[in-house]
Amino acid sequence: MLTEIVKKELKRIVGEKNASFSKENLLCYSYDATNSPYMPEAVVFPTDAKEISLILKMANSEGFPVIPRGAGTGFSGGSLPVEGGVVLSTERMRNIVEIDTENLVALVEPGVVTWELQTEVEKSGLFYPPDPTSLKFSTIGGNIAECAGGPRAVKYGVTRDYVLGLEAVLPTGEIINTGVKTAKGVVGYDLTRLLIGSEGTLGVITKAYLRLLPKPESVVTLLAVFPDLKGAAKAVSGIISAKVIPATLELIDSVSIKCVEAHAKLGFPDAGAILLIEADGNIEAVRKESETIKRVCLENRASSVKAATDKYEVKDLWKARRAISPSLLKIRPDKINEDVVVPRASIPDLIEGIQEIAKAKGLLIACFGHAGDGNIHVNVMYDKKDSKEAKAAEDAVVDVFKLTLKLNGTISGEHGVGITKARYLNMELSPASIDVMKRIKNVFDPRGILNPGKIFQTDKETSGYKA
Amino acid sequence: MLTEIVKKELKRIVGEKNASFSKENLLCYSYDATNSPYMPEAVVFPTDAKEISLILKMANSEGFPVIPRGAGTGFSGGSLPVEGGVVLSTERMRNIVEIDTENLVALVEPGVVTWELQTEVEKSGLFYPPDPTSLKFSTIGGNIAECAGGPRAVKYGVTRDYVLGLEAVLPTGEIINTGVKTAKGVVGYDLTRLLIGSEGTLGVITKAYLRLLPKPESVVTLLAVFPDLKGAAKAVSGIISAKVIPATLELIDSVSIKCVEAHAKLGFPDAGAILLIEADGNIEAVRKESETIKRVCLENRASSVKAATDKYEVKDLWKARRAISPSLLKIRPDKINEDVVVPRASIPDLIEGIQEIAKAKGLLIACFGHAGDGNIHVNVMYDKKDSKEAKAAEDAVVDVFKLTLKLNGTISGEHGVGITKARYLNMELSPASIDVMKRIKNVFDPRGILNPGKIFQTDKETSGYKA
Repeated sequence: MLTEIVKKELKRIVGEKNASFSKENLLCYSYDATNSPYMPEAVVFPTDAKEISLILKMANSEGFPVIPRGAGTGFSGGSLPVEGGVVLSTERMRNIVEIDTENLVALVEPGVVTWELQTEVEKSGLFYPPDPTSLKFSTIGGNIAECAGGPRAVKYGVTRDYVLGLEAVLPTGEIINTGVKTAKGVVGYDLTRLLIGSEGTLGVITKAYLRLLPKPESVVTLLAVFPDLKGAAKAVSGIISAKVIPATLELIDSVSIKCVEAHAKLGFPDAGAILLIEADGNIEAVRKESETIKRVCLENRASSVKAATDKYEVKDLWKARRAISPSLLKIRPDKINEDVVVPRASIPDLIEGIQEIAKAKGLLIACFGHAGDGNIHVNVMYDKKDSKEAKAAEDAVVDVFKLTLKLNGTISGEHGVGITKARYLNMELSPASIDVMKRIKNVFDPRGILNPGKIFQTDKETSGYKA
Repeated sequence: MLTEIVKKELKRIVGEKNASFSKENLLCYSYDATNSPYMPEAVVFPTDAKEISLILKMANSEGFPVIPRGAGTGFSGGSLPVEGGVVLSTERMRNIVEIDTENLVALVEPGVVTWELQTEVEKSGLFYPPDPTSLKFSTIGGNIAECAGGPRAVKYGVTRDYVLGLEAVLPTGEIINTGVKTAKGVVGYDLTRLLIGSEGTLGVITKAYLRLLPKPESVVTLLAVFPDLKGAAKAVSGIISAKVIPATLELIDSVSIKCVEAHAKLGFPDAGAILLIEADGNIEAVRKESETIKRVCLENRASSVKAATDKYEVKDLWKARRAISPSLLKIRPDKINEDVVVPRASIPDLIEGIQEIAKAKGLLIACFGHAGDGNIHVNVMYDKKDSKEAKAAEDAVVDVFKLTLKLNGTISGEHGVGITKARYLNMELSPASIDVMKRIKNVFDPRGILNPGKIFQTDKETSGYKA
């Protein structure tokens, strides 16, 4: 429990209006997209690295947890105050400090919403590619902490690939600068990329130097409809094998299609599966790539491949794509949303295996996602209140992970480990790797005050998943 | 000193013919491109991770240094046995295990020569972009350890951007797998990128999963000639500002041009500066980009901009480019070769400042390199035997670093710190950052047996550069 002295000191550091202890406010900072709330004891809204440094120094001396938080859109519990303590929200650090159009670099604070940055750089003909589905809410700081991906990762890579350097506050309060403000740099160990994807456990990001690209001169959006999932899955690796790397290559299965249409009517056709594909770049190159994509889809028994004719149609297609995740909850009250990745060519095996798992467990499993990079969002639908179904859902997840790893995949492409996957960490990583990671955590955070209870299981819990 | 028992055990681990203690052999493994040899006591040629694990375990129990080595082409001393011990050469681990054309992934051993991998993947229409100038000799393992760049980094990024996952042996002997075999993955801390660029101090890389791209369908090579350096430097940021990211964008100053021509006669024209530019990709896109590049060069007072007409001309141009570094040694017996990076738009300021430094110190400084990403190879020419000149050269380097950092740059874009820049580390990094890095080193290598004396100054030395 936070003492009155600590609360007073927190208010002194960030200013009276930037600290809250009221139950109504704390409730708003108790949840994320996992739908498993934990109440914090305080929420603070610092405005710079110095304030954060003071908070963290006090957390070390007084021994309370500090949980950095962007917009709370994460799927793995990264921003949940599982051990109580102080939620450190970056929402009042949302300045785009600079967009350097000569060097193609942006300097931003962590609370900048990804979409806002994209809109702003596009005004100068520039492009910030990372596009997590949450981009209209989620923040650059959160994106960096989780190494967020998104549909465009197939061609453009993930958040990691756009971060040149960081200003961060270490858990012990030191403010450091990592990386560079330039296109490259190799001085010392890569602390930048160690912080990226560390899920807020190694430091609080307070500024980021981001790499920008010129905005592609044209985009073509294609919708390919398949009578069955297998043909769509085969077309995915067929397109890549044909040496075309589209900007996005999204797969949507029939369960997901039906859900969106039943609850939102956004114009997806009734089909076994859909591929939503975008090619971007030089007009002539895009035309050529679109032709290849069409050919490969038709070779894999697509019943139709159509290009969106105007920007409204494109907008509608992406609206429908983004509606999948929320609309799934309309068929069953709960879902376990995983984001496994397999080598692209193994997507047909993954999908087939998941359908078998669903059948064996008597569950509905919806699959959609960034098939172009092998990243499939596997949504196991169930009802929490039905304990038998809940157990079956949990078992199904383990089976999906086993299948994924057998196919040389990974259990998380972009959502991270957080609390939801901590118990499965040892399915993918060896004891030696986990041990090194825990000791790195200890280097940064010897008292364990920054975002405790994440990634690694605590000693109180069982020691991971026993196969 | 290695005991007879240790030597016998080394022979037992790797096999009699894969260990050498003869002076003639040791001499071959005593140097790298820095031209400051240090004699090892043994050189071993292990063939797999298990042998390396046994060697490192023995190094821990017996307390001798182990120095991983690729081809020894590094410019910062990363592979030098500065404290003696055992050089661990990866030259007998040179299998390309797999080129997966469906998933665009290659699995290679560390001793594979970069050029060999490139040639091999190109047979399948694929492309491995990282191209350090040493690529015909240097190895993938060395490239990863140093995070090597190269001319194509401006468009395609550096080695880091092509490594998906690694098998590595930790200094304490555990064999770990890091990262993924897929396009993305975020499970646990990013040990892959912590190992990349760690200059062989955190682990020995024994396998690498590398990302491949489709080979660009066309390449145009342009040679732009400028009456002065300033125009060329301005054209560099002008091209990027015009939203063109060429595949390569190399700047060569008049000192370098004269050197190459005096000693190799490779066809560079007499000029104030040259830009060697390549655009690649779709034919139509390349045509358009070439036009923009030409326009920007002419706007910046280029006297001519010509496209190479056939592959022989292209080959000759790159041969000339690669000849710069060796031919510089023909004008002065020694050189200090730095690889500073500044934001592209600051290249004119950097070059001007360097010319002033050269004048003030009475030295010849040749500048060339990857101007497209702001990375300039600054070659301070001198004679080691002339102590006054040697002192002036060292002072000039410090001045170049100061200028670089003032321009928001970094003191190393791709060569690393090694031993040559260890004393300047604290010019760029804060004590808090260096402290974290040292403690990470200690997590991996508590006995300090793997590649000691690199990156960080030892306690025996002075504590860094005093400004």
